[in-house]
Amino acid sequence: MTWLHEFETRHGPTVRAVERALGRVEAIFTRAIGSDLECVRELCARVERYRGKMLRPAMTVLSGLAAAPEPDEERAERLARLAAVVEMIHVATLVHDDVLDEANVRRQRPTIRALRGNEAAVILGDYLISVAFHLCSSLEDQTVALRIGDVTSRVCSGELLQLSHRQSVALDEQTYREIIERKTASLIGVACEQGARLAGGPVEAQRALREFGVRLGVAFQIQDDLLDLVGDEAVVGKSVGKDLEKGKLTLPVIHHLAVAEPDRRRASLALMRAAWTGEALHGPAPGSVAGTATLVDARRELRLALDETGSLEYAADAADRSLGRAKAALAGLPESGAVALLHELAEATAGRQR
Amino acid sequence: MTWLHEFETRHGPTVRAVERALGRVEAIFTRAIGSDLECVRELCARVERYRGKMLRPAMTVLSGLAAAPEPDEERAERLARLAAVVEMIHVATLVHDDVLDEANVRRQRPTIRALRGNEAAVILGDYLISVAFHLCSSLEDQTVALRIGDVTSRVCSGELLQLSHRQSVALDEQTYREIIERKTASLIGVACEQGARLAGGPVEAQRALREFGVRLGVAFQIQDDLLDLVGDEAVVGKSVGKDLEKGKLTLPVIHHLAVAEPDRRRASLALMRAAWTGEALHGPAPGSVAGTATLVDARRELRLALDETGSLEYAADAADRSLGRAKAALAGLPESGAVALLHELAEATAGRQR
Repeated sequence: MTWLHEFETRHGPTVRAVERALGRVEAIFTRAIGSDLECVRELCARVERYRGKMLRPAMTVLSGLAAAPEPDEERAERLARLAAVVEMIHVATLVHDDVLDEANVRRQRPTIRALRGNEAAVILGDYLISVAFHLCSSLEDQTVALRIGDVTSRVCSGELLQLSHRQSVALDEQTYREIIERKTASLIGVACEQGARLAGGPVEAQRALREFGVRLGVAFQIQDDLLDLVGDEAVVGKSVGKDLEKGKLTLPVIHHLAVAEPDRRRASLALMRAAWTGEALHGPAPGSVAGTATLVDARRELRLALDETGSLEYAADAADRSLGRAKAALAGLPESGAVALLHELAEATAGRQR
Repeated sequence: MTWLHEFETRHGPTVRAVERALGRVEAIFTRAIGSDLECVRELCARVERYRGKMLRPAMTVLSGLAAAPEPDEERAERLARLAAVVEMIHVATLVHDDVLDEANVRRQRPTIRALRGNEAAVILGDYLISVAFHLCSSLEDQTVALRIGDVTSRVCSGELLQLSHRQSVALDEQTYREIIERKTASLIGVACEQGARLAGGPVEAQRALREFGVRLGVAFQIQDDLLDLVGDEAVVGKSVGKDLEKGKLTLPVIHHLAVAEPDRRRASLALMRAAWTGEALHGPAPGSVAGTATLVDARRELRLALDETGSLEYAADAADRSLGRAKAALAGLPESGAVALLHELAEATAGRQR
């Protein structure tokens, strides 16, 4: 039983089909990352816990079902393998992201870098990327490997674009959208597109499902960035305030800096710089570790400022609009349990109620 | 004109054929890593300088020529693409290695991490791996992608095995060989094997050339590890003493610890620990940065100790033997300019005279 259980009453047969498929994906994932070396196996066992909800595999499998129902055994195996590839690349980026972000907590657990250091995390990420490509090449259909190779380099280019704007207060919304489209949305888009293609779905369905995945990915990333500013670490399950600390400007901050009055803007910039540099805001906070107190204070004060200019709302609206476009992309597909469940999963992952 | 020029008098036609091929490899490499983003292009321009001698592409192309002479245009293109893939994966591992080793100099120039920080270096390495796999999948023959995916994860497993023995004075020669076979030799082996295969060479030639590549890789890595202990940074062109500083035991040290008298062994272990921890050896060295002075001193003293037990000689002999096995693997191939040049390149890269 997985988190999909909550959709069981309305979408029983589809949920059960996806859960069966996810069981297969897990088995493929585990077998693929297996190694003859104990030290590799031990790290892989830890990284398997990163898998969490397996949202991307679920989307991949559902895209296949939505584009062409009634899968035979061979098709189900192909889809599961694609889904495992997508999840493995996603997990690899998480492992490397935690190095870049110096994050110590993910899914309520210590990260690989926190447990084993940055070096193990860098190499383990490389290992996962390599295994994913190997698994991908084991599919007869070479187009998948080409699309996955292409999108993975696109994900990296998005990360590099973000890095090149680190601590740049001139970052505009268009560039922010370019970054999140590349680093987050493109992989989900390809997962849905190729899921539809491997299932034998028509080109229009492949296009519609890619659009769905991309728009959902954008909505999801905007929400995720919001949580980094307003979420509670215990609830979110990973380190928060990291974007602020690392000088990554996200949509609420970009909006705020664009609309705030000059005095307010100056004060917010001072808060951000304090978070970047770890400098004290108003003299040292008594009885607490200086850097931590500064970040927590800066985050709290900035949140109030963002709220004043309606910037948190602006970002939540932007996520809503992208989510709306994702759902609209499904309109051309024949009605089915899979399409209905894609709607619900999209709402559950990128909607306001999270 | 490349470094191959020195072999021109004896192997003129072969050298010119390889140089033409390397020109093609460079063009493919540069085109493949190209991006629509300025920030990515700028990093890629820097990383192209990591390419250096393009030893792996030269070995790939020569393996093709050795296994099946008279390549046609189509075959030459396939070989060049494979060679570019191998070089790109090699360069990606260098970029990540520099992060792991905190190295600031490579090929007489500052490393990506020194110039742009660890984050840019981690993502750039991921980008290069992804582009390499994409390029690999553009070959019609899927076996190449499978072999490259497989060997790349093997390279990572070797790095993880090495990491798991960090600062372990119990590391034995067998495990050391397992590490270098995986992390260095396996990629050269596959490059030679697949070069022979893509050229249409028989299975025996593919096997012989893989054996050649693996043995050469082992010899090369033992020599490279020796240079880290005894080489001069200005000559070697990259940071030295890194293995010692990072707690990586290499063959001379492993041999030394196995054969040294108890007192000598204890003293050497103290030197190694001083290098690992950055602690002063005999009190602070006046007028110099403490950590640096300690490493330089520890390296010098340890070198003397390694020489006393014949451990430097032991490692050089081991490299020679592996080089001998590499050359012996070529014996079954029909005589040709390509085979003769492979002999010479092996000697030039892993022989004592470097």
